[in-house]
Amino acid sequence: MTFRVHVRVMPREGLLDPQGQAVEHALSALGFEEAGAVRIGRAIELDVAAASRDEAETRARQMCDKLLANPVTEDYLLEVEED
Amino acid sequence: MTFRVHVRVMPREGLLDPQGQAVEHALSALGFEEAGAVRIGRAIELDVAAASRDEAETRARQMCDKLLANPVTEDYLLEVEED
Repeated sequence: MTFRVHVRVMPREGLLDPQGQAVEHALSALGFEEAGAVRIGRAIELDVAAASRDEAETRARQMCDKLLANPVTEDYLLEVEED
Repeated sequence: MTFRVHVRVMPREGLLDPQGQAVEHALSALGFEEAGAVRIGRAIELDVAAASRDEAETRARQMCDKLLANPVTEDYLLEVEED
């Protein structure tokens, strides 16, 4: 079976996010003063071929730990959906 | 009220995604041959102060159209959650 995995990799809570700050300032300059606490990370989508949803999630976590996310500065969230 | 808005900005279907291809090759080289169709975009989170969930979503869409996403090359998905 093939599963579609959605990963959201975000800068860790408490770490500076200069890109997010820049976007927050730009939003404010455009008149969106109601926006705040902007954080910017990466959205990654991929197909994972696996025998079960659990196996797909386990393998996707290994991919995050080894390549997709930096464990020192980033957190990630996984969602697995059947294709 | 304040709402937390999660935005996922992805390269449009059918457009080349060189970053996604590079990651796919790297995953394969690391032994994750079961991964495919990798696409990489941006994950954006922000607080939006608004009177209602609908208003928060409308404003967030305007932010996406004006700044957060490139309407020619990217699609975006919004999720609004009450803080």
